[in-house]
Amino acid sequence: MERSEESSLAAPRSARTGWVTRGSGTPTRRDSKRSSALDQSTLRRMLSSLGDPPIQLELWDGAKVAPEQVPVQAGLLIHDRGALLKLAAHPEFQFGEMYSSGRIEVVGDLLRFLELVYQSLKRCSASGIPNRIANRIYRSRRNTVSRARDNIHHHYDIGNDFYRLWLDRQMVYTCAYFPRPDVSLEQAQTAKMDHVARKLWLQPGERVVEAGCGWGALALHLARHYGVKVLAFNISREQLAYARERARSEGLASQVEFVEGDYREIRGEFDAFVSVGMLEHVGTKHYHELGEVVQRSLTENGRGLIHSIGRDHPGTLNSWIGRRIFPGAHPPSLSEMSLIFEPFGFSVLDVENLRLHYARTLEHWLERYKAREEQVNEMFDQEFVRAWRLYLAGSIAAFRIGTMQLFQVLFTRSGCNQIPWTREHLYRD
Amino acid sequence: MERSEESSLAAPRSARTGWVTRGSGTPTRRDSKRSSALDQSTLRRMLSSLGDPPIQLELWDGAKVAPEQVPVQAGLLIHDRGALLKLAAHPEFQFGEMYSSGRIEVVGDLLRFLELVYQSLKRCSASGIPNRIANRIYRSRRNTVSRARDNIHHHYDIGNDFYRLWLDRQMVYTCAYFPRPDVSLEQAQTAKMDHVARKLWLQPGERVVEAGCGWGALALHLARHYGVKVLAFNISREQLAYARERARSEGLASQVEFVEGDYREIRGEFDAFVSVGMLEHVGTKHYHELGEVVQRSLTENGRGLIHSIGRDHPGTLNSWIGRRIFPGAHPPSLSEMSLIFEPFGFSVLDVENLRLHYARTLEHWLERYKAREEQVNEMFDQEFVRAWRLYLAGSIAAFRIGTMQLFQVLFTRSGCNQIPWTREHLYRD
Repeated sequence: MERSEESSLAAPRSARTGWVTRGSGTPTRRDSKRSSALDQSTLRRMLSSLGDPPIQLELWDGAKVAPEQVPVQAGLLIHDRGALLKLAAHPEFQFGEMYSSGRIEVVGDLLRFLELVYQSLKRCSASGIPNRIANRIYRSRRNTVSRARDNIHHHYDIGNDFYRLWLDRQMVYTCAYFPRPDVSLEQAQTAKMDHVARKLWLQPGERVVEAGCGWGALALHLARHYGVKVLAFNISREQLAYARERARSEGLASQVEFVEGDYREIRGEFDAFVSVGMLEHVGTKHYHELGEVVQRSLTENGRGLIHSIGRDHPGTLNSWIGRRIFPGAHPPSLSEMSLIFEPFGFSVLDVENLRLHYARTLEHWLERYKAREEQVNEMFDQEFVRAWRLYLAGSIAAFRIGTMQLFQVLFTRSGCNQIPWTREHLYRD
Repeated sequence: MERSEESSLAAPRSARTGWVTRGSGTPTRRDSKRSSALDQSTLRRMLSSLGDPPIQLELWDGAKVAPEQVPVQAGLLIHDRGALLKLAAHPEFQFGEMYSSGRIEVVGDLLRFLELVYQSLKRCSASGIPNRIANRIYRSRRNTVSRARDNIHHHYDIGNDFYRLWLDRQMVYTCAYFPRPDVSLEQAQTAKMDHVARKLWLQPGERVVEAGCGWGALALHLARHYGVKVLAFNISREQLAYARERARSEGLASQVEFVEGDYREIRGEFDAFVSVGMLEHVGTKHYHELGEVVQRSLTENGRGLIHSIGRDHPGTLNSWIGRRIFPGAHPPSLSEMSLIFEPFGFSVLDVENLRLHYARTLEHWLERYKAREEQVNEMFDQEFVRAWRLYLAGSIAAFRIGTMQLFQVLFTRSGCNQIPWTREHLYRD
């Protein structure tokens, strides 16, 4: 087993966003004290509370624990007693904190380590699911228009230059669709946009509204290849500036208008409503409001498509991701998503789960990201570099293990019969 | 406008089931009294409460009402004052009762009449949906094992000879799948069975359990064409006798076992769980129980498919259908169906809505049924003949208008990665 990929614990560079203002980047060196019997029993309890996955936990002075009779496949180094105590008290949140700050290090492959731990935790909790969740609907906090803006700035306004380093050429920051697992990320993002357009059964001249348009790739793709007019909403200014520039330079400014606004600010009537990767930021408290927006926006024969990270059952987001990466985010289960559709009698035509496609998309992103970590480190400090590495790897593990799902839900108004007879048209060459 | 298709109001023939024991079949002749001003104002209120559809309502003495300024497309004759008062008091239930007993008659095309009325009623109620249903889950009554048997006998044990008159050759009494709208019913039922088998990704030698197997067509099809072993449960004895005889005569008895039993009696482990057209009879109170059955029945990489009539939002079945045709039945919304999946963390991979395919299936059934009404009348009385004509026509209207949906939901255990990469394989020739 080799040492982890992160070894240089360099001092932080300049901070550009809220990301690096926590006096971070000063990784604690290895504790010089010997570990106590108490430290070592804490370590054993920690392994046991993870369900004894085949990993080795090691303290600063070489004291270690590992499950008996299974070969160890990865390991974790804990560099100081403070990190050990924090991890023991709040493992879900502190793993991310300690990993980012360099006070713990993964030995071996980070992704493999995370998969082993997630799998083990899932086994532990599987038997508890029926009683724990019953029919409860988790309510995320209220994302008012202004809080929504803060949440979105935190993540999406980190800088276009940063995202350019590891996204595809068109800057599509949502799950791609791989007709075959081996197509390139570029091809898969284009295939995703076509998959969405085909599901929506777009006809030339139709009007489309997009809620949460990212860097504008989908809106521009639909205008160029499907002859529709698109009104695309976003509250991330960095993304909007980029999208508008693309529309201008590609001669599509008359077909695509990018609007700085929240989904709640959508006005007008459209033949299609599309939202790819926004619902995660809406919060279940606001699903009825979103349903109302769709209700007032769709023409009689209009179609809607919502593409979102989701879950098999209601639950809360990993607390570290929810605090450091995606504040205010909540991936819904299908019963939670039905709060958008059922009160308005929308007719769900098609739900497709693309979970493994998101794992594949993230594998591309992580590979590119890791190849560019030095450049990321020219923009941000090491804490940022490690946090994003962990977020990408952790997301791959979550989609592979099935903690996370990716739902594409296609719907119409109740009783709309202007729909394709079968889904075969989605798979025609 | 021609007079209705039913004109002969003959005396009842012999009764074979609970269907015709209500002293029925003595259609009231036209009332000889003149209608009063009160009768006529009741008629006007009735039209208005239907939302003024373009139909004419006519009393026994020729007094009539119709909406102004729209051409009338169908009509209803009400033959006596008693029928008028019953209809006015409980229209949803009494329409079926009065139609079956011949005390009201539809003028023009029955299906067209029903579509006009349903459409009009839907327009009236559309604005009310959001407040009425909120997040409420309608609870159907408790279908204990013995009550479930009574419910099923009422409908499915009417007699194989009866169903043979108007179903396809293989006696498939669920929504077919029409790759193109113009394929025959026989082709479409076979295509449905293949569609289900492909979704379940069956491999030769696998074990399948079927809950609610009807006359056994799907179980036999899967065994013959996909090389699987099937254990098929049903509580309708007439159907089981037929299915067992087919298995014997087709040499499939070693691959398919038909078991008299409720879904709750399923024991053993299977690679696939399939249920086509049973969930409607389960009742939401029992969805958790059904989830438990699936949970204990599926192997680690097992797949499940549930095919059921459903709705866009929780609601109760038409009261006449619920009492006379399908006692104990409840077509669920997707949020209600999630009570089967989410408590157990099942991962929904694919939901397909085949609403218009059910309308098309029912059109075939109604056409065949109408062509065989004389033969039906040799088995049952006129009340039965009319009730089933109304049920089939009403169902077409409900699926066309979107009051009813047809959901096929494919799922696996949480985190199962032994699944097809895309759905393209469903559409390969």
